[in-house]
Amino acid sequence: MNNNHVIIMAGGVGSRFWPLSTPDYPKQFIDVMGMGRSLIQMTYDRFAPVCPADHVWIVTNAAYVDIVREQLPEIPVDNILAEPAARNTAPCIAYACWKIQKKYPDANIVVTPSDALVINTIEFQRVIEEALRFTSDRHAIVTIGIKPSRPETGYGYIHATNQQAMEDIVKVAEFKEKPDIQTAKAYLEDGNYLWNAGIFVWNLQTIMAELRMHAPALSAIMDEMSQSFFTNQEKATVDQLFPTCEKISIDYAVMEKSKEIYTLPAEFGWSDLGNWASLHGLLSHDSQENAAVGNVQMYECANCVVHAADATRVVLQGLDGYIISEKNGQFLVCKRSEEQRIKEFSSAK
Amino acid sequence: MNNNHVIIMAGGVGSRFWPLSTPDYPKQFIDVMGMGRSLIQMTYDRFAPVCPADHVWIVTNAAYVDIVREQLPEIPVDNILAEPAARNTAPCIAYACWKIQKKYPDANIVVTPSDALVINTIEFQRVIEEALRFTSDRHAIVTIGIKPSRPETGYGYIHATNQQAMEDIVKVAEFKEKPDIQTAKAYLEDGNYLWNAGIFVWNLQTIMAELRMHAPALSAIMDEMSQSFFTNQEKATVDQLFPTCEKISIDYAVMEKSKEIYTLPAEFGWSDLGNWASLHGLLSHDSQENAAVGNVQMYECANCVVHAADATRVVLQGLDGYIISEKNGQFLVCKRSEEQRIKEFSSAK
Repeated sequence: MNNNHVIIMAGGVGSRFWPLSTPDYPKQFIDVMGMGRSLIQMTYDRFAPVCPADHVWIVTNAAYVDIVREQLPEIPVDNILAEPAARNTAPCIAYACWKIQKKYPDANIVVTPSDALVINTIEFQRVIEEALRFTSDRHAIVTIGIKPSRPETGYGYIHATNQQAMEDIVKVAEFKEKPDIQTAKAYLEDGNYLWNAGIFVWNLQTIMAELRMHAPALSAIMDEMSQSFFTNQEKATVDQLFPTCEKISIDYAVMEKSKEIYTLPAEFGWSDLGNWASLHGLLSHDSQENAAVGNVQMYECANCVVHAADATRVVLQGLDGYIISEKNGQFLVCKRSEEQRIKEFSSAK
Repeated sequence: MNNNHVIIMAGGVGSRFWPLSTPDYPKQFIDVMGMGRSLIQMTYDRFAPVCPADHVWIVTNAAYVDIVREQLPEIPVDNILAEPAARNTAPCIAYACWKIQKKYPDANIVVTPSDALVINTIEFQRVIEEALRFTSDRHAIVTIGIKPSRPETGYGYIHATNQQAMEDIVKVAEFKEKPDIQTAKAYLEDGNYLWNAGIFVWNLQTIMAELRMHAPALSAIMDEMSQSFFTNQEKATVDQLFPTCEKISIDYAVMEKSKEIYTLPAEFGWSDLGNWASLHGLLSHDSQENAAVGNVQMYECANCVVHAADATRVVLQGLDGYIISEKNGQFLVCKRSEEQRIKEFSSAK
């Protein structure tokens, strides 16, 4: 019997891709790569060989439940968990685990973000299965560590203990916040630092025990909530109790406190697609380093990244180093160097 | 009794404002200025004090008849003349004149383009009425000559004979094609050269006599067509005969040949709105010389002209000297210096 389960965290409200992504329809539901599938659909597809559809659990904001149902009709409605309010990742993961426990106490679980991209899905599946084998009969938390390809300052790092081969599952020495560029370069050279992809693997008993130990208040709320799970009281109970959870990340609640944290170094072409620069890096380029999704014609343009999936047609001339983004009748043109201001642009009136 | 009639020529398929203007919905039907009325509606409004709605005649391509009916519901359906094919201005004007002749043989007529802009409509009406008084009892063709405010190379010129005062109606010495910049500067200095606005005033007997003299083949076709006017045979007859007319402009067919051509020098803030530069010049500007129609926010932008009437919202950052145009899900960003290439951009696939 397949005990594998996947929890997909899909509550993000990313504003860095405005107007492509909006609070009404955030990034994870967008076909960012222009491949015909949204990021959450691609995340689901990636796990299909690992676990069946009724073992996939989506935790999202109540506002996005209809989008999830529309985009992932294969997933049972009971498996879509609606957060009445965002409480960061620890309550999100706890809700899913306590719910899985009611039906599948022997579950072996992968937790993943919904909005990251993986290029080599075959290798991804091999890595995930290896991690699941490791946690199937062991009290251990495995975080997937991405071997860095550049001194990236936009990610958190996992400091792995020394290892024989870079394919071994080894103990984590320490988690590291996003570094400055000098530190990132030192990490890259050292070889024992990995990008934290936010993908965690554990069996249900492990994560529940860790949460009970390190987050007893959260666990008490979950125990109370769980009495309503799979009943018609669930929504009312969750709406009442879930918002009383403290806002706390799983990293802070468990990862940094647990003694049984391992990492599996992996290399499958991963990106969190956190900004336009990373999207530009992943899309295919023309000879002038332009990357475009949509019906886009460019004349004398260079180094532009364009996403205009809704527009009938976009013609650009004489732009160098710009982001051009369109969705639903909203349009942005801005220099790539100013992308950190997009949130400001999107909220101005 | 009011004998005044207006013929509005509305057959243009202007592609210079793509995607704002398209062959399906050309410039004359667009609210280019963002004032709530399209150019043809503003043209109609401008003549409202001069002649009643049932004395207004629109000649347009058959494809645009529905748009005209929708935008100008005041005008009787019989007054909307459908050209089955574009044959330049002489057949267009002849069709309208022969048709007017069936009902109003004493008509005194103004012919005007549908896509020009007039700022001072009060002065415009005074000028038009003066010209109509002049032609009401005289065999004369009056062209409205716009006093030039700059050495414009985009317009044809009227060389007026010497005049006592610049307000007099005087004989035209000669029509001049679009000049080069040196010639345009010489015209401006000379003072006897006026912009040809393409606005003509004449009584019906005059223009029919002139056409019979200088364009006998065209007149013969009109004589045959006219037997069907105001009957249910009109469409079939016009569809058959109108395309047999030679393509010829009224300037070439009549203006350059007639002996009785006058010009009335005028100054009422006129523009043919022939390109983005002229639109930029006419819209109000912010402190950075940006001009915008639509819900547009600009950051660090200068010298841009933006028309995005359909878009919900447009945010622009870091653009200097660009045209940004949006309509119906089509979007253009290009340098103002490249605006003569917009037709090329619009037709590329």
